[in-house]
Amino acid sequence: MSHNSFGHLFKFTSWGESHGPAIGAVIDGCPPGYLLTEEIIQPFLDARKPGTSRHVTQRREDDRVKILSGVFENRTTGAPISLMIENTDQRSKDYSEIENTYRPGHADYTYDAKYGFRDYRGGGRASARETAVRVAAGAVARQILGDDITIAGALVQIGEHPVAREDWDWDEIARNALFCPSATTLPQWEELLDNTRKAGSSLGAIVEVIAHGVPAGWGAPVYGKLDADLAAAMMSIPAAKGVEIGAGFGAVRLSGEQNADEMRHDETAITDNAKSPPVFLSNNNGGILGGISSGQDVVVRTAFKPTSSILSPRKSIDRQGKNVDVRTKGRHDPCVGVRAAPIAEAMLACVLADHKLRHRGQCG
Amino acid sequence: MSHNSFGHLFKFTSWGESHGPAIGAVIDGCPPGYLLTEEIIQPFLDARKPGTSRHVTQRREDDRVKILSGVFENRTTGAPISLMIENTDQRSKDYSEIENTYRPGHADYTYDAKYGFRDYRGGGRASARETAVRVAAGAVARQILGDDITIAGALVQIGEHPVAREDWDWDEIARNALFCPSATTLPQWEELLDNTRKAGSSLGAIVEVIAHGVPAGWGAPVYGKLDADLAAAMMSIPAAKGVEIGAGFGAVRLSGEQNADEMRHDETAITDNAKSPPVFLSNNNGGILGGISSGQDVVVRTAFKPTSSILSPRKSIDRQGKNVDVRTKGRHDPCVGVRAAPIAEAMLACVLADHKLRHRGQCG
Amino acid sequence: MSHNSFGHLFKFTSWGESHGPAIGAVIDGCPPGYLLTEEIIQPFLDARKPGTSRHVTQRREDDRVKILSGVFENRTTGAPISLMIENTDQRSKDYSEIENTYRPGHADYTYDAKYGFRDYRGGGRASARETAVRVAAGAVARQILGDDITIAGALVQIGEHPVAREDWDWDEIARNALFCPSATTLPQWEELLDNTRKAGSSLGAIVEVIAHGVPAGWGAPVYGKLDADLAAAMMSIPAAKGVEIGAGFGAVRLSGEQNADEMRHDETAITDNAKSPPVFLSNNNGGILGGISSGQDVVVRTAFKPTSSILSPRKSIDRQGKNVDVRTKGRHDPCVGVRAAPIAEAMLACVLADHKLRHRGQCG
Amino acid sequence: MSHNSFGHLFKFTSWGESHGPAIGAVIDGCPPGYLLTEEIIQPFLDARKPGTSRHVTQRREDDRVKILSGVFENRTTGAPISLMIENTDQRSKDYSEIENTYRPGHADYTYDAKYGFRDYRGGGRASARETAVRVAAGAVARQILGDDITIAGALVQIGEHPVAREDWDWDEIARNALFCPSATTLPQWEELLDNTRKAGSSLGAIVEVIAHGVPAGWGAPVYGKLDADLAAAMMSIPAAKGVEIGAGFGAVRLSGEQNADEMRHDETAITDNAKSPPVFLSNNNGGILGGISSGQDVVVRTAFKPTSSILSPRKSIDRQGKNVDVRTKGRHDPCVGVRAAPIAEAMLACVLADHKLRHRGQCG
Repeated sequence: MSHNSFGHLFKFTSWGESHGPAIGAVIDGCPPGYLLTEEIIQPFLDARKPGTSRHVTQRREDDRVKILSGVFENRTTGAPISLMIENTDQRSKDYSEIENTYRPGHADYTYDAKYGFRDYRGGGRASARETAVRVAAGAVARQILGDDITIAGALVQIGEHPVAREDWDWDEIARNALFCPSATTLPQWEELLDNTRKAGSSLGAIVEVIAHGVPAGWGAPVYGKLDADLAAAMMSIPAAKGVEIGAGFGAVRLSGEQNADEMRHDETAITDNAKSPPVFLSNNNGGILGGISSGQDVVVRTAFKPTSSILSPRKSIDRQGKNVDVRTKGRHDPCVGVRAAPIAEAMLACVLADHKLRHRGQCG
Repeated sequence: MSHNSFGHLFKFTSWGESHGPAIGAVIDGCPPGYLLTEEIIQPFLDARKPGTSRHVTQRREDDRVKILSGVFENRTTGAPISLMIENTDQRSKDYSEIENTYRPGHADYTYDAKYGFRDYRGGGRASARETAVRVAAGAVARQILGDDITIAGALVQIGEHPVAREDWDWDEIARNALFCPSATTLPQWEELLDNTRKAGSSLGAIVEVIAHGVPAGWGAPVYGKLDADLAAAMMSIPAAKGVEIGAGFGAVRLSGEQNADEMRHDETAITDNAKSPPVFLSNNNGGILGGISSGQDVVVRTAFKPTSSILSPRKSIDRQGKNVDVRTKGRHDPCVGVRAAPIAEAMLACVLADHKLRHRGQCG
Repeated sequence: MSHNSFGHLFKFTSWGESHGPAIGAVIDGCPPGYLLTEEIIQPFLDARKPGTSRHVTQRREDDRVKILSGVFENRTTGAPISLMIENTDQRSKDYSEIENTYRPGHADYTYDAKYGFRDYRGGGRASARETAVRVAAGAVARQILGDDITIAGALVQIGEHPVAREDWDWDEIARNALFCPSATTLPQWEELLDNTRKAGSSLGAIVEVIAHGVPAGWGAPVYGKLDADLAAAMMSIPAAKGVEIGAGFGAVRLSGEQNADEMRHDETAITDNAKSPPVFLSNNNGGILGGISSGQDVVVRTAFKPTSSILSPRKSIDRQGKNVDVRTKGRHDPCVGVRAAPIAEAMLACVLADHKLRHRGQCG
Repeated sequence: MSHNSFGHLFKFTSWGESHGPAIGAVIDGCPPGYLLTEEIIQPFLDARKPGTSRHVTQRREDDRVKILSGVFENRTTGAPISLMIENTDQRSKDYSEIENTYRPGHADYTYDAKYGFRDYRGGGRASARETAVRVAAGAVARQILGDDITIAGALVQIGEHPVAREDWDWDEIARNALFCPSATTLPQWEELLDNTRKAGSSLGAIVEVIAHGVPAGWGAPVYGKLDADLAAAMMSIPAAKGVEIGAGFGAVRLSGEQNADEMRHDETAITDNAKSPPVFLSNNNGGILGGISSGQDVVVRTAFKPTSSILSPRKSIDRQGKNVDVRTKGRHDPCVGVRAAPIAEAMLACVLADHKLRHRGQCG
């Protein structure tokens, strides 16, 4: 058992604090023979990294990943892959205030309650900086999944404003800093975020990630369910407060007739194999039935709460239990959800890579 | 790694099919010295069991639990606790139709895709019958948690109809078969379910479970988060499609100011200990910050899709890939969510018992 | 983590006490489609069971195994396999003496030290009776390994008397109750055991188990080594005090030249494939190099201490810490090692089945 | 499951190859608040490191450990501790011969059989260099165990030459490079090793490690046995071929009367507590009964085979299956066991630290 490991056969163990010398991960169980270089991983880190637009934290990190082991002549060897990202932007800073104060919505109070003290510099282990190693691990997971499986994510809601789904265009995401898949929604969200940042306030968001090309049969019944593992994966991302699969909470409002994902023989199948995968007429189940993939797109949405660091003073207590007011000065994201799409993609990739190996282990 | 085990230090392994001779669980890691008898477990099974009202499946199971090991003179010994529930209502039945047909919304197709064949009798391993052993394990978990921690659950929505929260009365739940905490909502839901059952249709539901009295400090950062484990626990329940903690998806619509759970020194604390737990002025975080309990109520909601077994014919395919229409005859629940409250309570109890031991292991 | 589970992908969880209603195991991770019936498992239990000769405990147990789940139409389904063996010979007995006394060499004192109390009836969880479920699990593991892998075990030493290796005949084992592979050694051991039993004394033994037909490539480096898992497997058998692989402790006395298992191209290979497995000129490494199988026979020996239950009084203390003398009346084995061969075979089978799946999971 | 992790609650994951940029470990589960600095770990690495005498490999590594995370103001925080040791002595070397040839006794053939190819530089992942991170992890484990538990190791046999136990002096070990506890044995062993090195040959060895001060009650029954975990721990060290606990294989030759570790009330106990730990009159069980510590010294011996790299040519094959002769040029240890004592000590410390936490988790 490890609190800092994720996965079973494709498993990574994360380490590092926001303001220590580096963060990293050790990936164990990676099959041998996959192409892997730092250049393959780096673009995913670049997509996540702070400082790429006015909408996100201005912390400037190079986030250069180094592969320290497990790769020989650009191929995975089956040995553990050690990935390290050095922390380069650890501004010397006065932490005396945060050291002694519990910021509302942060883990300051609970870490102290658990461990008796905490590394308060930049949030320590609770910092969202940890998510960089998830993204790096996700890049390795994508190599295992191969080109037939596509994983993509988008922001689908900020605050009260959902994306205009009728305008959905995956290509749009590469053209903006908000992971927004709609050109009509984008300017509205940009204005919303600008106003929120100026007000020193913050907003929540919903991220949707989709895996296309997953074969039927991955996952497992009961406690090894693909959706149960996805739920844990997404809920482990900082600020996540909800996870849903397919129609999710919306399924509650459907009738059994509406919700049933009907099936039909695929008449377009080139070879008239009676056993060719069926065509599903809807995907309310988000590609998972009984914990096992159905061959449809795997669809997961995660809700992120508003950034807890805001300019308005909030009531709190200090380590001595005395009442104080807390406001967060300096750089912060008005909406942490904005940067969550690459992280949610990475977690989806890791869960799928793990289940690919688990399925192969049990079922050959 | 096990697909059929749940938990780490308080861990149970579930076994059994709907129409086999019995189902059961082996609980490993239970501390020694706790009082445990079949009489302590049985009431929780009785609350879950089918056939207790017109709103749920008319399958009649005694669901009598037997303790086969791990208890000596009514005390847990620290050895594995083997629990068994015999299946007594396995009506001899003609399964030839279901054997060859994939029911939409069920795991029939995905099991075949994964394993090459399946035990089709009554859903086999995918049957909701498996949840009886979760409830039994949850009863053991409650013994470990002790009387200071209260776990309770309620149905808070059926279809489009949320409970009237202004009327919330925990005592009401014991007086009805729908785990409904509102006397004003109850007759509306009863009428709704009656109409749905008569129409051969089905509805989704949301279940809310709450743990009161959890001390601050349980849980862990990163991948051992209390909320991540809860998300997996709830999503592993059959028909679950979404999980949220505290304000959950609703937190997306809150501003950072609204969402911050402000803290104040507890002026009512009897001893003027500066270190007494704070008073929180709201609980949008559902009792968990950074994956660690804050001392507030732990609040989890789970969305259940409508029952997949309905009378209206739905399009599907058979094992040979040919188009067929499927309708489910015989007994079924119009709303599987109705029976989910005791199961969600049990999963919450198991997660908390596990984290109690995990916290003790690491932090003493 | 579980103290009562063994294995990773092929994993079983054992439960039950010597004098409870039953013992059993839940096997998780078994691949689907393997033939499995109670008749396949039973012969292995019969080989282990007490009461089959004058040299072993006269406890009479039928040891009838029941399969409660995970098998459909005589095939494994991929779901957990629950095996149960009812305890039929629980003589009503006065345990008052053992209840209050710590028997030297037994786990009485250490269980009390750990748990604060213990189920003292027949040794409770520490009883060798638990090994019956290992044998049952081993029978399932053999199905996964298939007919190309042969697992066999023999007693190779009792007390100071090693077997005459020059007479080794595997067929001899089926003709005697001592798992003795030498017709010349057999009468000597029989006389030795008779004398020991009459004297109320006991002897230690060494068991050797061999797996033939294991392909090269199973196992893993570092902490997943095949030999490390075998060492844990064998050392977990009651009364085991030592484990060695291949030349084992004897390798210490060899020179590097003698110990090197030289290799040569297999000139007898039917197809002249340059990549055909090599011929090894010796097997000091016991079929494992760097934790990974080499294709040679896997050879493991386990040392068992003399039975702790003897007639001669031994000095001890009672639960109050007072000095007492302890002697064991009633049925007991003069050499527990005699019954250990089927158990060691089963553990070897389980380790190999687990590594077959682990190898397939990582390396396809 | 991880092939490169060791332990359960105190768990470390090892990474790195002999000739990569660095090796390291991530320790997860370390309790908060323990003093930890690089200066505390370094002396243990210095004791293990190559190049400290003429009897061991002349590779010169500084083996400077760096703590990259999990420590704040010299105290463990409960977060994962990342340890890194840079490889400084990676001589540029012609590996073309070893690349294509399987060295007998090494893991070259089996790695290729498993993974299809291998990182052949200096043995890659199979290199004994990996053991440096075990020693570093062991130093952390010792902090958890505290000063009341002493762990010490010694070489007790080289080739056919056991140590003179009648001369045992723990202090002697610090005065020589062979971990030899006897001043009379030392010159004999030195001469033996000199001759062996000159002849280009090699010898096996036995290492004994002892933990003093372990309280009664650590460990667990059945598959969580302290001795089973120790057997796996020791067998996972490169070149290990056998493990024994207490009297070990020697127990086979004892009678039940001799082997019983008799107990007596401790008359010297200062407080006349009836429950004071007993005095044991012998320690054939090596401090473990039924898998649980008895309070006596925990005693483990491990057999190491002769170094496989020798000057005399040995028969082998190359990657194409052709017959070749192999001899190892350059630096090598005539007896790998000589450097194994600090490694075995470290593994003992890690197993005990893990069981301390496991015991606390289950039993409080």
